[in-house]
Parts: sequence; C-alpha cells; structure tokens
Amino acid sequence: MLKIPVGVSNRHIHLSHEDFETLFGSSSELSKSKDLGQPGQFAATEKVDFSGPKGTIAGVRILGPFRGQSQVEISRTDAFKLGISPPVRDSGNLAGSESLMLKGPAGTVQLKEGCILAQRHIHMTPEIAGQYQLADGQMVSVSCTGPRALTFNQVLVRVSPNYSLEFHIDIDEANSAMLNTGDVVTLD
Amino acid sequence: MLKIPVGVSNRHIHLSHEDFETLFGSSSELSKSKDLGQPGQFAATEKVDFSGPKGTIAGVRILGPFRGQSQVEISRTDAFKLGISPPVRDSGNLAGSESLMLKGPAGTVQLKEGCILAQRHIHMTPEIAGQYQLADGQMVSVSCTGPRALTFNQVLVRVSPNYSLEFHIDIDEANSAMLNTGDVVTLD
Repeated sequence: MLKIPVGVSNRHIHLSHEDFETLFGSSSELSKSKDLGQPGQFAATEKVDFSGPKGTIAGVRILGPFRGQSQVEISRTDAFKLGISPPVRDSGNLAGSESLMLKGPAGTVQLKEGCILAQRHIHMTPEIAGQYQLADGQMVSVSCTGPRALTFNQVLVRVSPNYSLEFHIDIDEANSAMLNTGDVVTLD
Repeated sequence: MLKIPVGVSNRHIHLSHEDFETLFGSSSELSKSKDLGQPGQFAATEKVDFSGPKGTIAGVRILGPFRGQSQVEISRTDAFKLGISPPVRDSGNLAGSESLMLKGPAGTVQLKEGCILAQRHIHMTPEIAGQYQLADGQMVSVSCTGPRALTFNQVLVRVSPNYSLEFHIDIDEANSAMLNTGDVVTLD
C-alpha cells in the first residue's frame, strides 16, 4: 500500500517572464525565498494582488521559475471572494479557463485566461509508478483517516524523474479532510 | 441507492436565551428572516461578531430557535482566520470544545466552550432509516461525482420524525467536492 506525503497548496501564481516584467518593471528579477517540495520549484519573495468582479486578494505568492504562460491557482473559497468561477484543471491546461486582473508595483496584467482550481494530483517518479503499475495521466483514488476520513477520487498521476512523491491538494480539500502538509495518505 | 440532497452550511451560531439577552439586550427578541431545510429551524435577522486570538469574523447569522447552550459552527478556513482549533463534533457534543468571544450590539459573551467544526451528517426520517436499515448515530459513507468526485466517510446518521432528508456539510467540504446546496449525493 503506497503511502504518500501530503503537500497543501495555498493560492499562488506562476508568471510568464513577460507578465513579470509588466508587473514589476523590466529591470526586476525574481528572487528566491525558499525551495519547494518539487526539485527546481521555489517560492519567490515577490507577491502580486488579484482582483475579480467581487473582491481583491492581496499579497499572493509567486512561484518560480517562469513559465511560458501565467497560471493562477486558487481555492474555490478564493474564487467566491473574487467573484469568478475557474474550472478544475490540470496544470498547464489553461484554454478557456478564468480571467483575472493581476496588480504589481509597476503595472497591471489582465489575464484573459489562466486562472484554475488545481486538479488534485500525485507527483511521483517512474520507479514508483512502475512498482504500482501506474502511468502518467492516470486517475486514481487516495484515502485518509481521522474524524473527517474520506476518499479523494479523480486524483491525477503525474510521473517524472524530476518529481518527489507528494499528493497535492488545495486548502479547501485539506480542510475537508483535516489534513496538513506532511500528513500521509494511502493510494487505494 | 439512496439519493440525498445536499445542504451547505455557512458559519452560524445557535444561542442560548441568556447569551442572546447579553448580546442584544434583555428586551430584545429573535426575529425570523427565513425558514431552513429542517422543520422549525430558521435563520434570524440578527447577527453577531466572532473574535479569536488572530482575527474577527463580523456579521455571523444566528439560527433559531434558542438552545440550552450556545453553539458556534464554523469552517476550518474560519478557524485559521480566528486563530483557534475547534474539534470535529456532532451538534450538542460541546464538552471541551473551543472557546470564542461573541460580540453583539448590547454586550459581549466569552464562550468557554461551544465552538466546533460540525461533523458531516445526514438528517432522515425513521421511515427512510428503516428502508435502508440505518440507525440513529451510525456512521455511513456518501459519494458524489464530477471533477472533484469523492467519498465522504465518517458521515453521521441522525434520525427523527421531524427531519427532512438532507446531507449537511460545511463550505470547505462543499468546495473540496464542488458541491452546492440542492446537488444530490448517493449513500454508498
């Protein structure tokens, strides 16, 4: 039975280099605050504000490195506050996703699309995938115990030699199951 | 297969008559704003503020009628904002639960206990319980479909001739499953 450490993701944004320059100025650079669970990924010092039709969320963390297209990942709680309805999507699958206004110290960016609720997923290496006969892109189920025990279905398997084993959920999902980063869930 | 309508509960408070008088004044009366899904239960017009060590949540709805002991039901998202750690509890099981400061137009009440995360539960009549061989107090599992399909375990069955069939969850739980009030889940 595969045991998987939980990583709870707070709202965050992955920026394109172009959008970063618009928000922070063309001479600015993204500075690392701390490394994240997945190799090469880091939380930056810089933050941006989100604005939607119904509200604003200030001081949202940028995750590096830069990506080809800016991507905003928020919880459904955040979405209600902003007044938007992002779809549940896998990272990078942004066509037709929600629009959002970004604000930085040097300017604003109106994203036409790129705001999603992240599909819950497991990062794993090819070695572990092989051991449990799992393939990249497969959907699996994951269970936890406790006073809010539940089974998450529709959990996407993502396989890469660069990944560390981790089950990624957002704060709403963590709260519904009373989970914290570092807790352990089991593959069904 | 039993299909159960979902009722999503926002944060709310059930007040004792004594605490209501402290908060609103001894000549005040609780006024009905609208009836709720369970017979006899109503949302009141009056609201109170919650204060914890880390923050305040203003304008929280009172649900009537009065109870013997005041009971606060919040989400874990709310708990983080207030800076408290309420346990997951069934309604009325308040011994040793969290403390919280209440503020009304006429005064404040420091609850020594009474703040909980509500255990997810199903209200049902004895007829339906009998049909599905369920008993009051039993734990069952309930499933939903969709992009965030999941199975909630640790769902408490509550049986009374006064109940309407309804699956009660809080907003964190609803968001983790992309559920809204009026959606339908199935008993496993």
